[in-house]
Amino acid sequence: MNYGLVLRSLSFVALLTGGFMLFSLPWASPSLGPAREFEQSGFLSLLYSAGICFAVWYLLRFLGRNHDKLPMYRKEAMAVVGLSWVMVTFLGGLPFLFNETPREDGLAMTFADAMFESQSGFSTTGATVITDLEKVDKCILFWRSSTHFLGGLGIIVLFVAILGHGSAGKALMRAEMPGPTKEGSTARMQQTAWRFAAIYVVLNVILALALIFLGLDLFDALCHAFGTMATGGFSTHNESLGYFALHPEEYKAEWIEMTVMLFMLLAGTNFTLLFFLVLRKFRLLWFDVEWRSYLGIIALATLLVMGFGLYHGDFSQWWEAFRYGSFQVVAIVTTTGYGTHDFDGWNNFGRGLLFLLMFIGGCAGSTGGGLKVIRHVLFFKILRLELEQSYHPSVVRPLRVGGHPVDDPDLRKNILVYFAIALFLMVTCWLIMIAFEPDDTWQVLLPAEGLSSPVEGPSAEQISLDNKLIDSASAIAATLNNIGPGLGAIGATQNYSRFTWWTKLFLFTPLMMLGRLEFFPIIVLVLPRFWRSR
Amino acid sequence: MNYGLVLRSLSFVALLTGGFMLFSLPWASPSLGPAREFEQSGFLSLLYSAGICFAVWYLLRFLGRNHDKLPMYRKEAMAVVGLSWVMVTFLGGLPFLFNETPREDGLAMTFADAMFESQSGFSTTGATVITDLEKVDKCILFWRSSTHFLGGLGIIVLFVAILGHGSAGKALMRAEMPGPTKEGSTARMQQTAWRFAAIYVVLNVILALALIFLGLDLFDALCHAFGTMATGGFSTHNESLGYFALHPEEYKAEWIEMTVMLFMLLAGTNFTLLFFLVLRKFRLLWFDVEWRSYLGIIALATLLVMGFGLYHGDFSQWWEAFRYGSFQVVAIVTTTGYGTHDFDGWNNFGRGLLFLLMFIGGCAGSTGGGLKVIRHVLFFKILRLELEQSYHPSVVRPLRVGGHPVDDPDLRKNILVYFAIALFLMVTCWLIMIAFEPDDTWQVLLPAEGLSSPVEGPSAEQISLDNKLIDSASAIAATLNNIGPGLGAIGATQNYSRFTWWTKLFLFTPLMMLGRLEFFPIIVLVLPRFWRSR
Repeated sequence: MNYGLVLRSLSFVALLTGGFMLFSLPWASPSLGPAREFEQSGFLSLLYSAGICFAVWYLLRFLGRNHDKLPMYRKEAMAVVGLSWVMVTFLGGLPFLFNETPREDGLAMTFADAMFESQSGFSTTGATVITDLEKVDKCILFWRSSTHFLGGLGIIVLFVAILGHGSAGKALMRAEMPGPTKEGSTARMQQTAWRFAAIYVVLNVILALALIFLGLDLFDALCHAFGTMATGGFSTHNESLGYFALHPEEYKAEWIEMTVMLFMLLAGTNFTLLFFLVLRKFRLLWFDVEWRSYLGIIALATLLVMGFGLYHGDFSQWWEAFRYGSFQVVAIVTTTGYGTHDFDGWNNFGRGLLFLLMFIGGCAGSTGGGLKVIRHVLFFKILRLELEQSYHPSVVRPLRVGGHPVDDPDLRKNILVYFAIALFLMVTCWLIMIAFEPDDTWQVLLPAEGLSSPVEGPSAEQISLDNKLIDSASAIAATLNNIGPGLGAIGATQNYSRFTWWTKLFLFTPLMMLGRLEFFPIIVLVLPRFWRSR
Repeated sequence: MNYGLVLRSLSFVALLTGGFMLFSLPWASPSLGPAREFEQSGFLSLLYSAGICFAVWYLLRFLGRNHDKLPMYRKEAMAVVGLSWVMVTFLGGLPFLFNETPREDGLAMTFADAMFESQSGFSTTGATVITDLEKVDKCILFWRSSTHFLGGLGIIVLFVAILGHGSAGKALMRAEMPGPTKEGSTARMQQTAWRFAAIYVVLNVILALALIFLGLDLFDALCHAFGTMATGGFSTHNESLGYFALHPEEYKAEWIEMTVMLFMLLAGTNFTLLFFLVLRKFRLLWFDVEWRSYLGIIALATLLVMGFGLYHGDFSQWWEAFRYGSFQVVAIVTTTGYGTHDFDGWNNFGRGLLFLLMFIGGCAGSTGGGLKVIRHVLFFKILRLELEQSYHPSVVRPLRVGGHPVDDPDLRKNILVYFAIALFLMVTCWLIMIAFEPDDTWQVLLPAEGLSSPVEGPSAEQISLDNKLIDSASAIAATLNNIGPGLGAIGATQNYSRFTWWTKLFLFTPLMMLGRLEFFPIIVLVLPRFWRSR
């Protein structure tokens, strides 16, 4: 292991984190944004945290000064990715830890809370432990949303362009499609990374401008743009995106929802396809199997949610069913997790379907989390081929995507292994959670104070111990797939504050990291053999 | 497809089914068993059904009279296995359909009910739709338990000896172990089949004698022996095995429970190992990785159930915790599904753990259902190897079981495919069930009449609509893995009668068949390409 190189790479991540913290400082002033007075606590927290980031940068640079001149191999790359996410979680959580405002109402931000919130931001999960966002310093909220922006950027740059070699989605994307990403030379990859980062930043800017046009102030517009394009889901309001529907005199809520929905769809799309859009090669979109499946799943799920919702009386009319149903389906499939409706109050089919949709995820090469659409497409194709082989063992047909046979011989096994790891993590963590998360967590029957759903308030009996098994499963799924909200105790009108510190710190935080980095770079960190071997 | 050969093979199955029905006839007489008067309805139902079986036998023989003299290939074997289970389900359900006794109390046995009950017997699931067993004709109950015996025999003969080539467990067993099953010549396989059938029958007899010694009458002893050795779970009493604890003056309940537990453990053991026991090669048992894992899982799960049960107050003392905990764990892991305690009233960890144990199953080559222990062992070994390969792509290490590398190159993929199919079936059927099984099924709050648990009666609030998602998941798991009872609406004190006929007929019945035959022989039956191709 080339430790010097790893340390030097990490030092840049610390520098980047500290630098971005400085961007949140101006929001402490009431002259620029929604802060009511100068937010001393938030300002100082950010300043101290940025100072620590710079100190870490310098320290890591110093420690890694004598690094070998070897190139970065796969092992080093995995170590850098895994360790940088661990480090950035810690550094990014410092402002939450130092800041005093969440504490004023007895809503203390403990170490576990701060790490959870930070990881939730960087992993673009969007799950929160803050029960009353309105009382938190605005500059801290801006930093919170900035972690989404940074996390999304990191995913695009790391996965699509630098580390994309190993991931099935990338391998496929290159095998299948003509264009600039076909060849895998380092220079090409870096060029692609810059292009994708540019698309990402530009889309953030366009969405922010659109939201300003629809009535939001600059602060809300930027935060929600960050939350949307990173498929994160942090909002600046307790009611998430439902806030705007509660103030019809100020905002055009339907337009805001539809705009955010469109950009969620774009954020869940493979950035290679977005690049083709820029090049005006529109036809290539329709030939992409993954993108068609992605839209098909969303359309079908929306129809089912609408149909069953109308039948069971969750919606009173078609327009309402479409408005809330489509938004919620897109928010879950793209793993954003914004809410405009208390979907936990829907009929059981709707709730169950949303639970399953949590595992779909966005397209490969997007900021969306989850298992990714292409893996599901391949999963079904593999099962079909295997069934045929069960009675015709001698006939071996190749795996085809979009008409072309896929050349990677290990792809079948890799896809299945990925599902197997996800299943293993789900089951193991679920068992740990139902064992160690006390029953009392479910017996707090009152809804968290200050929360209200745009349509219906949380009813006390929704959070009952009877639902411990299913609520826990949804919490594991929502963190592993980087969604945010789930069912019951973590439903649309609830949050993660009720859980014990050990579940937040040792279960949810690692799960968000595992899901975001597609398991391997995090799992290998805890294998002694990984560090021992060359 | 050699249709003639398939039809002739099916005709023997019809003959066997009809023949076995005749064995149930004597129990209609009060002179032999517990029948209070001559059971005319049951007697005639069995007689008519047997007649239909013989007619089907003759018809199939006639239709298949001009069969090619070709040997039976893999395709034909799959068709015979799949079709014979479909046919036997229909034929075996006829006595339930014709018999009038269950109808007297308004507990009608519809076509769906009869098919469900029959398939539950043959697949050794042990799930029932009969709400009051005491009122059913004894000869019908004997036929019901005979389906377990036949089903268990079929599994042993079909899977271990005749069709064992393709199944992963068998392939492994042969690759790994010395002894009579190492070579796969047809004559050897047939000899093995006879040996295993003999062990199965002898164990049934020994258990029946032991139960008679412990106070049961011949009828109860035979029925419970059939239910145990086939890992089925049909009882002749509403309280399942808990009945005996309710009558301490007549029965030594603890001894009965421990005896049944021991034989459940044997029934879940690979029959090759039982054969080694007969040959007094005891050491080979300890060297078998699967068997050690099987015992290890049971021991660990029992300890966890005991510990959490005592902590949460489900049990008042250690002996009680051991008695009920160990029995329930063994009953679930071996997929028998007998009950001595209302485990659905346990703490959530205990319930969740039992839910997961449903997927473990017995050893390969046993009558136990589920995914089988060896598949889980290999699953973990595969994941470990794949993790290592993620950072050392060039190092390929072979899969080892018990120290020996496994030679089958497709084994890794096959194990993962098997888990993938199970996952796919679980998820799809769960979604169908929560969509089409109406909410009213859960809103029947009263416990089914005549049922009482040995320890605690079913409380009304246990069956609430809130639990639809988890109850449905457990129902799918309990049928697919051939367990029987599950959580909530199908808990230890409940049964499957409440569900709609379409769920019973089109969901549960096929699922039991799929689980029992390890998916492939049933899935291919509905593929048009399977029938078209040669």
